[in-house]
Amino acid sequence: MPIPILRCDKNTNQTFERFLAGAKEDLSSATEKILPILEAVRTRGDQALLELTEKFDGIKLSSVTLDPHSIQTNLDPKIKEAFLRAKANIETFHEAQKRESWSKTIDGNRLGVKYTAIPSLSVYAPGGKALYPSSVLMGVIPAKIAGVKNIQLITPPQKDGLPEILIWLCQILGVNRIVTVGGAQGIAAAAYGTESIPKSEFIVGPGNAYVAAAKSYLAGSGLIGIDSPAGPSEVCIIADSSANPKWIACDMLSQAEHGEDSSAILLTTEEEFAKQVSEELEKAFVERPKRLEMKQKSIYKNSAILVFDNLEDCIWFSNELAPEHLEIQTRNNESVFSKIEHAGSVFIGPYSPVAMGDYISGTNHILPTARGSRIYSSLGVDTFLKRVTFQEVTKESLETLYPFVKLMSELEGLDEEHGTSVKVRTEDSI
Amino acid sequence: MPIPILRCDKNTNQTFERFLAGAKEDLSSATEKILPILEAVRTRGDQALLELTEKFDGIKLSSVTLDPHSIQTNLDPKIKEAFLRAKANIETFHEAQKRESWSKTIDGNRLGVKYTAIPSLSVYAPGGKALYPSSVLMGVIPAKIAGVKNIQLITPPQKDGLPEILIWLCQILGVNRIVTVGGAQGIAAAAYGTESIPKSEFIVGPGNAYVAAAKSYLAGSGLIGIDSPAGPSEVCIIADSSANPKWIACDMLSQAEHGEDSSAILLTTEEEFAKQVSEELEKAFVERPKRLEMKQKSIYKNSAILVFDNLEDCIWFSNELAPEHLEIQTRNNESVFSKIEHAGSVFIGPYSPVAMGDYISGTNHILPTARGSRIYSSLGVDTFLKRVTFQEVTKESLETLYPFVKLMSELEGLDEEHGTSVKVRTEDSI
Repeated sequence: MPIPILRCDKNTNQTFERFLAGAKEDLSSATEKILPILEAVRTRGDQALLELTEKFDGIKLSSVTLDPHSIQTNLDPKIKEAFLRAKANIETFHEAQKRESWSKTIDGNRLGVKYTAIPSLSVYAPGGKALYPSSVLMGVIPAKIAGVKNIQLITPPQKDGLPEILIWLCQILGVNRIVTVGGAQGIAAAAYGTESIPKSEFIVGPGNAYVAAAKSYLAGSGLIGIDSPAGPSEVCIIADSSANPKWIACDMLSQAEHGEDSSAILLTTEEEFAKQVSEELEKAFVERPKRLEMKQKSIYKNSAILVFDNLEDCIWFSNELAPEHLEIQTRNNESVFSKIEHAGSVFIGPYSPVAMGDYISGTNHILPTARGSRIYSSLGVDTFLKRVTFQEVTKESLETLYPFVKLMSELEGLDEEHGTSVKVRTEDSI
Repeated sequence: MPIPILRCDKNTNQTFERFLAGAKEDLSSATEKILPILEAVRTRGDQALLELTEKFDGIKLSSVTLDPHSIQTNLDPKIKEAFLRAKANIETFHEAQKRESWSKTIDGNRLGVKYTAIPSLSVYAPGGKALYPSSVLMGVIPAKIAGVKNIQLITPPQKDGLPEILIWLCQILGVNRIVTVGGAQGIAAAAYGTESIPKSEFIVGPGNAYVAAAKSYLAGSGLIGIDSPAGPSEVCIIADSSANPKWIACDMLSQAEHGEDSSAILLTTEEEFAKQVSEELEKAFVERPKRLEMKQKSIYKNSAILVFDNLEDCIWFSNELAPEHLEIQTRNNESVFSKIEHAGSVFIGPYSPVAMGDYISGTNHILPTARGSRIYSSLGVDTFLKRVTFQEVTKESLETLYPFVKLMSELEGLDEEHGTSVKVRTEDSI
């Protein structure tokens, strides 16, 4: 039962159809379960958080918050060095995304854009097996660079205390507070605020179905802003026989390692190369059998090698799919990349496996999934900045433009007041 | 029953509280009504659109689309001149928002951002009394400048044909198609696509509660992206007695002219000035009695003059409110503006009434309402652009960074495949 190798034709043989369905998580049953939790936190604040944490996590908290700056940590210096190197690269890449406010004269008036940061942010970090400290770097750094002043980390409590790495990251990143409440109740605490937890107006970061449902529900009701909904992780690889089939197989497996829902799609024009990659996948299953069942389900059920007639059709399919991660390993990578329009993060050339971006190159790894990159971007400084537009109109320009405003407002039936508000300024002096 | 004049204190006398509630429209009853409409359009396409249009608009359509470029129009040249002037200014302001893709070397690797446009857009334009051709300029121009290739206008049919102004605007703006179906069925047609209407992946523009509910529901289910939800229009004005009280009253009334739910909040430190503005409002009701009841409801029930002790507190309140429109008419406008963090569009100085931005100055008038500008921006070129991040890692850098990736992936339990995908590249050659 090797990975499916499917011959595809853009027009006639659409064996790829099922991969374009866009794997959206159905959150309706999770949403039903979280509504009473949200209501409890909204109405009873801290007390509800203590009760829910005892119920769901089996932990009696004395406080729902923690000041990371009041705690001594004792991390392995080598771990610190790795995270500091990642931090430096992520900071450099995101610093380059900063925006300068600007203004210019248009038709006699000063018009411009002033960039300002959102007021407050919570970054959710899952606990237990899904502890990804690298995601804390990815969520907090762009917000800090954007200028967000109040940043708190929301994370479930652990029986033997929070992992030191999380506390240390909060220290070096300047996170104001850790809220030690997980799940939907943690999200509710951040969205509504409680006696001891300030309300956040924006929440980002991955979590389980209850966390996702709570974020989605509260965003839908207009209470908070969120990052784009996260589905299973996916990679698409455009490659030809100039690539190393073993490396390609490794890259596909590193997506499969995230879970059986994850997907790895290889697009190529060469059937022989497809077979080599398939063989490398089989070899890898023998050589690296950890979590074998999960990885095999991901590769055999949710992944495929699609063989198109030509490279143009591979590129066309990739743009339709708009993958979260896209690797390009061909004889002419720049030409392929120049035609890419929709992808979360792109990895160009043989030495750019997705894992480099996941951890250390500097790009963000919080990316739109399920074809979302056709309309959404990865997390970045822009996620946390707003464009406040402004104008200062001169008396002269107002007088010149009034006749046009009069005509336009008449046409829209708004001349009585809209028109008058301009007209009075042509008549009286201040 | 004049406009309420309320003495406010930031800390002790919070008479302003109700104005910070954030007027969100409750769409639940509208959502219930539109679900069968969405389902009909999804499953029966064009035929459902014809039936629903006959039912709701009383019009038998022969076709649900119209090619604007196939129609002769005969508009008053003066109207054309006004709209062309507005178009030129809006284009200049939005051209300045274009983004350049970039790349730089970080830790030995090439990292960058490539800006690409969303693939397709529908702009909704209400019909009947709410016909605002200026909104078509505001929705289409930023998308065109961003590079969106497929743009269609969705608008309800009219018994005596579509207004010429809409058709002409589609011609000069390069809109590909007009879909002559309104309401929730028009939104559904754009979101799902039908036999004769291509699917759009993004929908913007104002509409009634059914349109808003359809947009919101379809966005929530991940099918489309939308602009931020639009509530009633609002203006906040920070002014002192250097301003002309009659002009301020006119500006407040031009918001009231949009509907009784609209709100105009004047923030000042001078009670005497507040009284003068109140008197000017009363005079205006006598002088301009069109739609008097509506305007009075807006001014008396949803508006107020808040008198704070000092200008700093006025600015603080304005940032809390995060108004859709903010006017600043004080003795030191630049100083006030420098402290503004949250507002949709700001109008600085005595000659910048909101109506100038509504029509002709060049800024966009599709703005976040209901305190949304604390986290969202006005419509702009960025609304339709995505940041595709990319990286090309060198062999050297991969080798240098591998030990860090190894440590980080081990900590996250992802070393088997994530770690290996980097490791193999340090061992084999391509």
